[in-house]
Amino acid sequence: MKKVHNFSSGPGILPAEVIKQSAEAVLNFDNLNLSLLEISHRSKNFIAVMDQAVELVKDLLKLPSGYSVIFVGGGASTQFAMVPYNLLKTNGTAGYLNTGVWASKAIKEAKIIGNTQVIASSEDKQFSYIPKGYTIPDNLDYMHITSNNTIYGTQLKEFPKCPVSLVCDMSSDIFSRKINAADFDLIYAGAQKNMGPAGATLVVVKDEILGKTGRTLLSMLDYRTHIKAGSMYNTPPVYPIYVSMLTMKWLKDNGGVSWIEKINEQKAALLYSEIDRNSMFKGTVVKEDRSLMNVNFVLTKPELEAEFDALTKAANLSGLKGHRDVGGYRASLYNALPIESVKALVEVMQEFEKKSA
Amino acid sequence: MKKVHNFSSGPGILPAEVIKQSAEAVLNFDNLNLSLLEISHRSKNFIAVMDQAVELVKDLLKLPSGYSVIFVGGGASTQFAMVPYNLLKTNGTAGYLNTGVWASKAIKEAKIIGNTQVIASSEDKQFSYIPKGYTIPDNLDYMHITSNNTIYGTQLKEFPKCPVSLVCDMSSDIFSRKINAADFDLIYAGAQKNMGPAGATLVVVKDEILGKTGRTLLSMLDYRTHIKAGSMYNTPPVYPIYVSMLTMKWLKDNGGVSWIEKINEQKAALLYSEIDRNSMFKGTVVKEDRSLMNVNFVLTKPELEAEFDALTKAANLSGLKGHRDVGGYRASLYNALPIESVKALVEVMQEFEKKSA
Repeated sequence: MKKVHNFSSGPGILPAEVIKQSAEAVLNFDNLNLSLLEISHRSKNFIAVMDQAVELVKDLLKLPSGYSVIFVGGGASTQFAMVPYNLLKTNGTAGYLNTGVWASKAIKEAKIIGNTQVIASSEDKQFSYIPKGYTIPDNLDYMHITSNNTIYGTQLKEFPKCPVSLVCDMSSDIFSRKINAADFDLIYAGAQKNMGPAGATLVVVKDEILGKTGRTLLSMLDYRTHIKAGSMYNTPPVYPIYVSMLTMKWLKDNGGVSWIEKINEQKAALLYSEIDRNSMFKGTVVKEDRSLMNVNFVLTKPELEAEFDALTKAANLSGLKGHRDVGGYRASLYNALPIESVKALVEVMQEFEKKSA
Repeated sequence: MKKVHNFSSGPGILPAEVIKQSAEAVLNFDNLNLSLLEISHRSKNFIAVMDQAVELVKDLLKLPSGYSVIFVGGGASTQFAMVPYNLLKTNGTAGYLNTGVWASKAIKEAKIIGNTQVIASSEDKQFSYIPKGYTIPDNLDYMHITSNNTIYGTQLKEFPKCPVSLVCDMSSDIFSRKINAADFDLIYAGAQKNMGPAGATLVVVKDEILGKTGRTLLSMLDYRTHIKAGSMYNTPPVYPIYVSMLTMKWLKDNGGVSWIEKINEQKAALLYSEIDRNSMFKGTVVKEDRSLMNVNFVLTKPELEAEFDALTKAANLSGLKGHRDVGGYRASLYNALPIESVKALVEVMQEFEKKSA
């Protein structure tokens, strides 16, 4: 099979051995002579998968006690609604940091539910930087941030000191770098970037913050429903959870978050230094806020895009097109992307410079 | 590989050729040399899958114009909330037919959202029959029914004449028998019984009934969001939708709903006639309401369960245990279950009678 370098922004690359084992489970899971797609989620075989997935999250995040770990469907976009629905008191206020399209969508949902303040925003410069120096009021029900902005290629290098519950959308950089889990009261992440395939969403929540809004909650939108039932209140997204479990296991077996963090730093440094060195390319965001996960860049001579595209295609580099809202290029360097793929991209960039400069 | 007869109530059996093709797509999808699990949902390859899935639904249901077809996450349990949230006017009333646990859960969610009336119920006899002869008031915003009750093994053979929007949870018998789609204003179904694996939910809705509640809707809970975006407002459950598409294609290629309806009738007739003939077994629901999908039965001598279980195990019959709420046995005869599996079960039942009667 031809080697493809997969820079897709999400659903994104998964480890080769996870792909192989995931395919096997479709044919014959756990030597049951049945597919994982056609067995009960309440079978002991799948319950073991769910238990293992929860344990891996706790282990990879070094989660203190007092938190619950659940897997739900509906994507991070459903969390944009569930967070205020579960945490924003009927007479309270929520705070948001607006760092891009996803944060803006989260703000839109919170405003439907209750009072919502944008504490700081980088909308004035097309979200090309991370706001700093703002103060988080201590009367908020919670403060919501987005740790990494997939579309723009910015990332919070430090998390704000927060006098209220800190809620973080980590969809695109969870398990990519060490964090202090105790700094957060709620973390959520769609699986399809650093954790697994599309269809499952991880929520990690401090139990004591729940049940305080004064609102009667719809069952499926109530975190407590899923916590109480061990993510089995209804049929969970079985296969996406299984593949996520395998991906987390791959990470743990190889050395965990501290291992991948170093590799992620190396991959990003390699690509950013080439962008800065190469006369044909330039980055699009403030250097200090550059994402290690999504590297955005444009050509200094945009009229040569067709030539560059031909070179990347010939080298089997896939998924480099920028988001439709911003254009240009974006290389997503998720955990499973090997450094060899970044080297292949850098070589093409150098070849392009030689031919076109 | 040892042949297993899979009577699981859900996630349930899928066609062998669908399983094979689904495994191949995990390794290499559409000859992209990439896994379906790690490509963008906005790639032309996946958009083609989504389009084909929508067309197959329209084709299999013989859907008239004026309806939209969407695929969402969150399971039918999320639909229990979304239906009243999208259809129950702030000053209106919803009607429900209570035929079991799933209907009861749907009623619970509707009551959180607004005025909700149970029009008829079979709770008085442990949901062992389908209520009949009730009148549906013409001032309801909608009437909600459950076409097949997986846990109890009852099924609506005829749908009520309905003066208001008829809404139907068809999770466990969609595509198993011919229906007149125009009789329904909204149909929903979790994929994991007759349509595919867990993680995707189908919603078919008449466009003109939406947007009339007077409520401001959260985006992910608003059917119009998903309709407008072609089920791509957020990252959809890619793989569950793909496997569902393949399963619907298998059904269509083999002759569609009218083809499978005949086979389903044969399978159910074979098993029910054995239950009625065999002195060791008895059915648990009113004969006229017996489900063609989920066949519930108990032993006339419950003390012999261990002996019967040993025989089914030796014959590789899997998934026959009754739901934990009702006990006994349940054989689910979904579309993909071959009649040979029913024959294998009947043989074991006859063997059991010879040994134990």
